[in-house]
Amino acid sequence: MSLNETLQEQKDTLLEALQDEQREHLDELLPELRAADLAEILEDIIEEEDDLPLVLGLLDCLPIERRANVLGYLPGDEQLEIAEAISDDMLLLILEEMGSDERVDLFNLLGEDRRETLLRRMARQEREDLKRLASYEEGTAGAIMTSDYVAIPSGMTVSQAMMRVRQTAPDAETVYQLYIIDGDGRLAGTMSLRQLMVARPGAQVDDLMIKDVISISVDEEQEEVARLISRYDLLAMPVTDHDERLVGIVTHDDAMDVAESEATEDFHKGMSIGQLEDGVSRVPIWSLYRKRVTWLVLLVFANLFSGAGIAYFEDTIAAQVALVFFLPLLIGSGGNAGAQAATLMVRGMATGDVGVKDWSKLLGRELLVAGALGLTMAVAVAPIGVMRGGEAVAMVVAMSMVTIVLFGSLLGMCLPFVLERFKVDPATASAPLVTTLIDACGVVIYFTIATAILTGL
Amino acid sequence: MSLNETLQEQKDTLLEALQDEQREHLDELLPELRAADLAEILEDIIEEEDDLPLVLGLLDCLPIERRANVLGYLPGDEQLEIAEAISDDMLLLILEEMGSDERVDLFNLLGEDRRETLLRRMARQEREDLKRLASYEEGTAGAIMTSDYVAIPSGMTVSQAMMRVRQTAPDAETVYQLYIIDGDGRLAGTMSLRQLMVARPGAQVDDLMIKDVISISVDEEQEEVARLISRYDLLAMPVTDHDERLVGIVTHDDAMDVAESEATEDFHKGMSIGQLEDGVSRVPIWSLYRKRVTWLVLLVFANLFSGAGIAYFEDTIAAQVALVFFLPLLIGSGGNAGAQAATLMVRGMATGDVGVKDWSKLLGRELLVAGALGLTMAVAVAPIGVMRGGEAVAMVVAMSMVTIVLFGSLLGMCLPFVLERFKVDPATASAPLVTTLIDACGVVIYFTIATAILTGL
Repeated sequence: MSLNETLQEQKDTLLEALQDEQREHLDELLPELRAADLAEILEDIIEEEDDLPLVLGLLDCLPIERRANVLGYLPGDEQLEIAEAISDDMLLLILEEMGSDERVDLFNLLGEDRRETLLRRMARQEREDLKRLASYEEGTAGAIMTSDYVAIPSGMTVSQAMMRVRQTAPDAETVYQLYIIDGDGRLAGTMSLRQLMVARPGAQVDDLMIKDVISISVDEEQEEVARLISRYDLLAMPVTDHDERLVGIVTHDDAMDVAESEATEDFHKGMSIGQLEDGVSRVPIWSLYRKRVTWLVLLVFANLFSGAGIAYFEDTIAAQVALVFFLPLLIGSGGNAGAQAATLMVRGMATGDVGVKDWSKLLGRELLVAGALGLTMAVAVAPIGVMRGGEAVAMVVAMSMVTIVLFGSLLGMCLPFVLERFKVDPATASAPLVTTLIDACGVVIYFTIATAILTGL
Repeated sequence: MSLNETLQEQKDTLLEALQDEQREHLDELLPELRAADLAEILEDIIEEEDDLPLVLGLLDCLPIERRANVLGYLPGDEQLEIAEAISDDMLLLILEEMGSDERVDLFNLLGEDRRETLLRRMARQEREDLKRLASYEEGTAGAIMTSDYVAIPSGMTVSQAMMRVRQTAPDAETVYQLYIIDGDGRLAGTMSLRQLMVARPGAQVDDLMIKDVISISVDEEQEEVARLISRYDLLAMPVTDHDERLVGIVTHDDAMDVAESEATEDFHKGMSIGQLEDGVSRVPIWSLYRKRVTWLVLLVFANLFSGAGIAYFEDTIAAQVALVFFLPLLIGSGGNAGAQAATLMVRGMATGDVGVKDWSKLLGRELLVAGALGLTMAVAVAPIGVMRGGEAVAMVVAMSMVTIVLFGSLLGMCLPFVLERFKVDPATASAPLVTTLIDACGVVIYFTIATAILTGL
């Protein structure tokens, strides 16, 4: 049974028990469900059945800690909808139980009045922590970090540190990586729980810790955090402020989420779609329209260059209308090869496989590959040229194919590097942009070759 | 200073110390470098300077454990090159120090003779373990798992389990998630080290463990492992054989690598590029050619439909050559909108945001969005139509734009679902395929409308 089928079944059983008010059956079912799965079921109920009271009823059957946990797995829209339907008292209890990174995400969604009310009722330390976390710009390390980490004051022995770990365990996001802090709150070193466990109880933590810690500044981009966690296989990454003070950590699971959403963003950019604020099935239609229309309209105007090329060669076309037969084929092939080349570079840059310094080496490789591709495609198209218009047309078409594919591939390959050079995101070299550019150039190349050969004959 | 610049500097200092034979300086520099960074430097030396002896010299300066560690971070090609240059004795020592998942990856790269020689010289248990791990098919959970996990026999107390963790700590990939095994080697439950640390020493592990473990079969696809680890925020995921016996675990860092390479594969598929066996800057040119040429040539033939459409309407075109002016623009716009729609669905399906059951809802949304996009683009192109060919041409072009964009978007949106339905990877609905299909349909739509309106007038 697939994950989706299992979920659907669990949801049906749950709804049945709820409608029949079989509270006992419900109390049996609910603890068996994982938070991520329960969240997905609740999301389904809100989206498909639009039945918020049902969701609130289900949440009421859960202990507070679990409510907080499930809520953290829901998308922002649904979190907000639920938060707006429950009392301040309950919301405060739930916020308290949430991890600090999820707490601030929900908090930032609330209206200003509600935020003020809640803040006033929080303990001072909690309030300060929340306000601080809420102040970091979206997309930065600060915005995704949690302040629930295990800090060990410098100077502790191994057994003291172990005691501290045990005390902090219930609240910390992870207890497996410990951060040693000096008197000024600066990050002095790091140590894994594994190291701590096998160390002599009387040893000094300062003698055992790794001093050269991989850390990141609060202002750094979130994708850089994900990249470093992946590169160095870290469990968590410490985040420091401008005075090198430890202010939070980002854990591996959050880094994985960031990597996924960054990849999705790049997928969309690759088709000239702007950054969506939610999944494609959930984002408002108006927003989807806006994120798609900008480049589409820009490219309509860019396409006028193709039209201008065609207008320039109108006499050639009028004299030999059969040439139009090969036009979509030739410019389409160039566009496809060019989009391939661009995508290979853009993705290579995003994963760190390709750097600006590799440009000349990659240009040489692309020259060879694109030349071979162009020749192969020319061989494929030449017989059709003979059939449709004789040998002269076949020669025009084959020569145009090689030239357009070669030119298109090189253009597609170089564009991401040029953009990177001018500090523009290389992913802007999207397939639609690349194919539109190649369309225009392809028209000119094709009809220039056609005019030269067919007039010459 | 960026990561790349830091690395370049470290590499220069390192090479200098090596060339001047400043062994002392080298002994100072090497321990400061992280394994991942040192591996990148070695990779650079092999690729750019083709100086294998230099690399071997550097590796000789490292303790065996670190050699194994650095080797594990190198790409397969480089690992093999180094392995082939060192003695059986040394290779055995290094293999012994590697994690079992990296060990088997390197082992699988070696020639059969070398493998036999090495196997004969290994201890029995190590040999069996290696042979077993080597037997799993690439791309499965079995192929990426490690057998270095902490197994706790069912029936132990908390303090006994803690002792076991301490003993296993030096070799295990992670000690933070423990797996409880019954008498038959079956996975009975799981427990985090955190839970174990705060538990009463005399308590029974069997009473504390979570019995409903998320596990996966050895044969499952590696991307499913990554998806589940991401969904449930796991540190590691247990892998079981057909008798439910625990045979290995996949850790979060390996899951993140899998997610990244799967995303890269999907990026390439989105441009009709086959699966590359290595990064784009490293894969052999011949292989890059083969992975790109297949679809390009197929699409050349698919493009003949566009040509056929044009041939069919040759009279209309001959009578009004100005129509050709708008041809690339119209079919290009349809292709762009269609490729956007297809990509949104393909990525949505890959991340689990879109399921087959959402089809009808998404179709309704796409109808609205694509309609609005088509109208906007028609408004943009209409004035140009008036300028180039008068009001009749403007009407033809505007009507064609709306129809082609609407049709292209719906085609692009539906294609991934159709492919999924027929058990074909939805990512096959690549931008080149979608645009080629829309090109052909666009030609027919455009000239049909043109013939109807211009002949009618």
